[in-house]
Amino acid sequence: MGGAGGAKEELGVVESREWYLSAYAPDGVPTSEHLKLRTLSLSLGPDSIPDQHAAVKLLWISVDPYLRSRMTGQEEGLYFPQFELNQVLIGVGIGRVIRSKSSEFAEGDIVINLFSPIAEYSVVPNASLRKIDADPTSKISLPDYLSSLGVPGFTAWVGIVVLGNPKPGSNVYISAAAGGVGMVAGQLAKLKGCRVIGSTGSDEKVKLLKEEFGYDDAFNYNKETDFDAALSKYFPNGIDIYFENVGGKMLEAVLNHVNHGARIPVCGMISQYNKRWTEREGVRNLLNIVGKEVKMQGFLLGSYFDRFGDFMEEMVGHVKQGKIHSKHKIYNGIESFLESFASLFSSSNSGKVVIQVV
Amino acid sequence: MGGAGGAKEELGVVESREWYLSAYAPDGVPTSEHLKLRTLSLSLGPDSIPDQHAAVKLLWISVDPYLRSRMTGQEEGLYFPQFELNQVLIGVGIGRVIRSKSSEFAEGDIVINLFSPIAEYSVVPNASLRKIDADPTSKISLPDYLSSLGVPGFTAWVGIVVLGNPKPGSNVYISAAAGGVGMVAGQLAKLKGCRVIGSTGSDEKVKLLKEEFGYDDAFNYNKETDFDAALSKYFPNGIDIYFENVGGKMLEAVLNHVNHGARIPVCGMISQYNKRWTEREGVRNLLNIVGKEVKMQGFLLGSYFDRFGDFMEEMVGHVKQGKIHSKHKIYNGIESFLESFASLFSSSNSGKVVIQVV
Repeated sequence: MGGAGGAKEELGVVESREWYLSAYAPDGVPTSEHLKLRTLSLSLGPDSIPDQHAAVKLLWISVDPYLRSRMTGQEEGLYFPQFELNQVLIGVGIGRVIRSKSSEFAEGDIVINLFSPIAEYSVVPNASLRKIDADPTSKISLPDYLSSLGVPGFTAWVGIVVLGNPKPGSNVYISAAAGGVGMVAGQLAKLKGCRVIGSTGSDEKVKLLKEEFGYDDAFNYNKETDFDAALSKYFPNGIDIYFENVGGKMLEAVLNHVNHGARIPVCGMISQYNKRWTEREGVRNLLNIVGKEVKMQGFLLGSYFDRFGDFMEEMVGHVKQGKIHSKHKIYNGIESFLESFASLFSSSNSGKVVIQVV
Repeated sequence: MGGAGGAKEELGVVESREWYLSAYAPDGVPTSEHLKLRTLSLSLGPDSIPDQHAAVKLLWISVDPYLRSRMTGQEEGLYFPQFELNQVLIGVGIGRVIRSKSSEFAEGDIVINLFSPIAEYSVVPNASLRKIDADPTSKISLPDYLSSLGVPGFTAWVGIVVLGNPKPGSNVYISAAAGGVGMVAGQLAKLKGCRVIGSTGSDEKVKLLKEEFGYDDAFNYNKETDFDAALSKYFPNGIDIYFENVGGKMLEAVLNHVNHGARIPVCGMISQYNKRWTEREGVRNLLNIVGKEVKMQGFLLGSYFDRFGDFMEEMVGHVKQGKIHSKHKIYNGIESFLESFASLFSSSNSGKVVIQVV
């Protein structure tokens, strides 16, 4: 009950645009045949908000590769369940509370929602909201909460710090290195004293990795005809940690260069997302993990939420001290969701892809 | 100096047959073109034995699949280094000390050597020998030291107990289940309260798994046209631990049936040993390890030697109490090495393959 209820009685029915899935896309990059925008009328009057709920106006959306796995229509045991057809899409969002039926949140609060409807306005339970300290004097911007301090940053931290066990001098290879997760993973490994090499999809991003994110070296995988030869060149002393974002032929090449006891935290395999599994590239040299005693481990953030506090403590420090930088590729307006999502699979982006909704 | 030196002054030059590698075999099952037997004259007189060495007459040889990886001539980072051409082969052997230049060993001692020349007689450093308590009243036979109490048993124990983390009720799948490692792995998992299913290459061995080794169920993979369908049938509740001995298509099928948090200790991949890596079966669904947070870990015994005492304590208890049985496929005479080794890749054997040399 109560809280800020009634402060904006004039707030009534709004037009809210939202994205939904109209057809599953078992392979290929989803198009406007699959992802559609529609406008709904939504009542935000005080009687329309249930107790312990809030009405939220969306400010920022995080555009993430893992969403692809929820659009195939095929249960592969991947991440989260499939999106339901004709239901609004769900992603990580930052919004402003515009009406609250709870003492926990007040109008004007800036909140993050890991399961936010990709809709201009939504009415959601308190339990899915967490308040963000939107201090204007802080060195932390709102999109930082979707990158270094958000899901990509936490993903990078779990992979590098928790599973990677980095030591000073460890040879670390990050694929998809200029993406939202990769850019943080590489910077974290550098902070642990590692030698860090990244691969990415354009010369411009190679430059970014070396000049802005402090990678020791980087290469454009589109220019390498032989990944094996590239890794021989960049890792004369082998690979101790491979932060796996890509899969397929790149993983196969890496397995020919792993050192004894190497760790491969597997965050995702973006090169394989748009193919049915039987069409994916097979990895033929898995036997190498025996002789080199490699540990390859898939992970999802849900299993590490008990470490979120540790992560935030460490990462807020790094961000405030300017030791971890984030680059954001910002699309504008909720209507840009399809374009921004498709861009994830084109290697055209640098940094974390986000949408500034308003 | 000294020890039993001089007790058998009459022991002079012996004729000793030994196996050596005359050519590498990059693919296929090695034949008499690659593995050859020769006879050497070996002096075992007291002046021929260096200090801290012993002369050993070989009694038993362990015939193991991993030896294949030392015969390819290709450094793949697998297990041990390649055998040198024209040098005697090395395997795990049990022998009797026939002359000693050390107070640690006396004539007549029964010893095990993890790096034994596959030769009727050899002169080896003490450091590679460990005495076996060959107590005739014990329930432990000499070949047990090459199976449940030897390298295969320790391998099974590391995979199941150390890496597999078995719980009562865990669903455990063992491939190559009637082999030297598999038979112990399955019995260990049963002792931990798991539900254990094995696959093997003949109906006779299926029977063995169920009737002698206590598997809950087992199937003949040669009769299954669709591994995926077979696993659906035998694992309606999914797989929690897969003890990986096989690789290729079987691993791929398993990855479609893993439960959340499944463990895959990777002991070896026998289906892949006789192929060059680029010809091996690619595994296309590795992406499943992300969504199911699977931990796949290659292991070699060398990294677990500090646990050998724990293993022996547990396993000697099991063997003496009749809780772990071993079956041995015994070949006779050192001349049978090639035949016995080739048999490992034919699915014609049940149990641990050993040679009784004399």
